[in-house]
Formats: sequence, C-alpha cells, structure tokens
Amino acid sequence: MLESTSNSERTLKFIVEYDGTGLCGWQRQDNGPTVQQHLEQAISEMLKTPTAVVGASRTDAGVHAMGQTAIFKTNCTIPCFGLRQGLNRLLPDAICLRSVEEVASDFHPRFDARGKHYCYTVLNRDTPSPLQRRNTWYLSKPLDIGAMSEAAQALCGEHDFSSFRASGCGAKTPNRRIHKISVTRVGELVKIEVWGNAFLRNMVRIIAGTIVDVGRGRIPAQQMATILEAKDRRAARQTAPAQGLCLLKVFYNSNVSQWFE
Amino acid sequence: MLESTSNSERTLKFIVEYDGTGLCGWQRQDNGPTVQQHLEQAISEMLKTPTAVVGASRTDAGVHAMGQTAIFKTNCTIPCFGLRQGLNRLLPDAICLRSVEEVASDFHPRFDARGKHYCYTVLNRDTPSPLQRRNTWYLSKPLDIGAMSEAAQALCGEHDFSSFRASGCGAKTPNRRIHKISVTRVGELVKIEVWGNAFLRNMVRIIAGTIVDVGRGRIPAQQMATILEAKDRRAARQTAPAQGLCLLKVFYNSNVSQWFE
Repeated sequence: MLESTSNSERTLKFIVEYDGTGLCGWQRQDNGPTVQQHLEQAISEMLKTPTAVVGASRTDAGVHAMGQTAIFKTNCTIPCFGLRQGLNRLLPDAICLRSVEEVASDFHPRFDARGKHYCYTVLNRDTPSPLQRRNTWYLSKPLDIGAMSEAAQALCGEHDFSSFRASGCGAKTPNRRIHKISVTRVGELVKIEVWGNAFLRNMVRIIAGTIVDVGRGRIPAQQMATILEAKDRRAARQTAPAQGLCLLKVFYNSNVSQWFE
Repeated sequence: MLESTSNSERTLKFIVEYDGTGLCGWQRQDNGPTVQQHLEQAISEMLKTPTAVVGASRTDAGVHAMGQTAIFKTNCTIPCFGLRQGLNRLLPDAICLRSVEEVASDFHPRFDARGKHYCYTVLNRDTPSPLQRRNTWYLSKPLDIGAMSEAAQALCGEHDFSSFRASGCGAKTPNRRIHKISVTRVGELVKIEVWGNAFLRNMVRIIAGTIVDVGRGRIPAQQMATILEAKDRRAARQTAPAQGLCLLKVFYNSNVSQWFE
C-alpha cells in the first residue's frame, strides 16, 4: 500500500518571479525571510503536509528573479493550474508562481540545468530614480558602453573564473562557460546580460562591478583578460550591489542557440 | 533694506520624480507623509528657513510622478545645481529632484500649466508580477485593446467631464480638453496615455477604469459617448487603483503639437 502511494508521487516544476527587496535571498535560513521559506510555508499549508522545495539557483539577498525554477514533490491530486492559483493566494505579494507543470520524477532543477540567463541593470543618468531604485544600481557619470562591451567579450568561453568568485563559494571547480555577454544602453538604463552554463557565488555581480569600472574609465577594457588570468578575486573589482541583478531564466535545453531566441 | 532683500528673491522651478507607494499623495496633510511635506522639510532644512512649495498637480495617495513640477521662493544664492544635489541628499529615496532652474518671479506651476501627460499602466497576463506590482493594476483576463482604443477616442476634444469627476472635486468648471488618448499594448503591459489641458479630481483614474471595462467586455466601446453625455459620475465605471497612474509631464508650452515630440 505504501508502495502504491509512493508511485502516485508527482514531481512539480514551477517557475517563480520574486522581488528580492527585503528578502534574505533564496536559501532557507534563520536570519530572516527567504523565498524558499515562503514557498515551503505556502505549499505545506495548502497541501497540509510539510513539503520541501529545491531550487535551481541560490540567489543572494536582494537579488530578483523573473524565472527562478524549482520543484516540490507531492501525492496530492490537485491539477497544476489549481496549485498555481491556490499558492499565489497564499504567497506574499513579493513572490508569484508563473507556472506549475508535472515533470519526470528524477528531474533536478539544479543538476539538470544547462544554463542561466541573468541581467544586471545600471541606471545611468544625472539623478537617482525613485521609481527604479529597487532594481537598478545608480551611477551618475556617463558610462562608456563600447569599452564595457569590449571588456565583456574577454570573458566569453570556458575559463577558470576564480577572479570572479566570492569567498565562501562552495563549488568544486571554478571552471564555467559563458556563452554570451552583451552590454547595451536602453535610454537611461545600461543592461549587462550574461548567458552561461553555471555561475560561481557572486560571479555575475563581480563581473558587473568590473565591467562598470571599465565603463567609468577606472580600468582599461584590455585589463579584463589580465584579471581573468590572475585567477584571484583581488584582481577583479567590487561586487555590484544586489538590487541590480535579476535571474531571467534557467535553461534545461542543451541546444544553446535556442537560449537566445 | 527689506526692499532690496525682497528684490533678490529667486523663484526656483523644479521637476520631481516620486514613487507614490506609501506616500499620502502630493498635498500637505495631517494623516501621513506627503511629497509636499517632504520637499518643504528638506528645503527648509537646507535653507535654514521655513519654505513653502507650490506644485502643479495634487496627485492622489499612491500615484507616482516622473515629471511633477513645483516651485519655491528663496533669497539664498546657492546655484541651481547645488540646490538639486543638496536637496536630493536630504530627501527620502522615494523622492528625487530631476532638475532645478530659476524662472520669472510670477511663474505659477498650476495656473501657468497648459497641459499634462499621464500614463495609466495595466499588467495584463495570467499571473500577478512581484516586480511590477508597485506601478501597475493587475488584470488577468486578456483585454481587447482595439475596443479600448475606440472607446478612448470618444473622450477627445473639449467636454463637460462630470461623469469622470470624483465627488469632492473643487474645480469651478467640469469642462476640460483632452488632446489625445492612446491605448497600446507593450508585451504584458497595456498603457493608457492621456494628454489634456487640465484634469478633474480622479479624472484619469475614472477614465482608465471605464476604458478597462470596455476592454473586459463589460460595456461596449460605443457606450463611452453615452457615459460622457450623462454628465453624472454614476454613469462611468470604477476608479482604477492609484498605483497604476503616473504623472509623466506638465507642459508650460501652449504649442500642443510639441507635447507629442
């Protein structure tokens, strides 16, 4: 009988958007509210049984997501649409499920991920913006987009990204592949978008902080290659603040060309 | 001597952006923090003398602005740029001066205004958005943009807008001229933009609420003309929620064609 209950267990993959402002990141912890905690609480309440959530990416405190991906396992028979609607009623306004779908029982959101797409946004104009302060890094001096873009290209490909790895990063290897980086200006906003197979702790924020220093003229674009080769965190520049970062998408498709569609 | 001090009085016009979330609107009041109060406090503190601020538009609680315009008068000799930088350091993050400039002493931000540009934004997709919840009205059912746009055109021109006027509106006449209304979909966002010479209390929000009801199929587009002719608030539909509204610009130029550049 237990066997049969276990056989009816479903693995539910969901995509979740969150406003990281005021949240202590993804990962469950004792210091304050996290996205994982809120999700586990809502799911456990709706399903009336303690339920764990496993996510693709441990976003830092203050970082946002439009396409974080996670799973939970349940024996409930509520349809996916009903789960999404019900959970969105229980979750705080800062967190919302975009979709829920049933997947194979061995699907793992982190180990099966083939890539991620992040966007780091800088507000670059003469005064701060009250309306955009929650999801941008404000910098008043005009940035040199051409130089930033040139510097970014040095990071493409497979490299040892130790220079862009925060202390305390638990990854076994510092090798990662960046498939594409783009730096574009859209009016007052400068967007640094990164597509990579996986990321070290704070990697996108250290990359953004370093590219921004190229844009500010503090280091030349050519120095990016030297920083990468140093394989030393001290060679790179400051970690850009959390609120400018957003996890846009997690890819489970290994056909990289489709990531950019 | 007093005469000469009075002669050196400067009238300083400024453009201010604010995030209306958590603020009790523009107008000074006892119930809670307002934009005018914060500005008067910061200016009085910086100039070390009580200073009044007069604004172009009394935006409601929760309404945002990118281009509210206001003035204050001062005998101080601090350059405009220094005033902007100094005041932005004293103001809360939710309020920021975009520019400060000296204008003729008889300039009045409200009486001299020739028009205003507002944008009302609806988020129209299958789930709410944590990242856009502060400045959109969320509606899940797909809106009919064509019908909304058709309905909006009935409001263009000079009319008695009593049907779109909240009770308690202190305006002497209900006649206003709408120069242009556009309804456009930009991805998940539906933007209702209105350019008019002046607006009655809650006028844009009642217009938005009524146009949205056309988009939801609750009333036909053709009914907009009937609602306008009724000259009765009960003929129009609900007041759209404050957080979707933003005052984009106040025009002091009577050449209307330049408003749309």
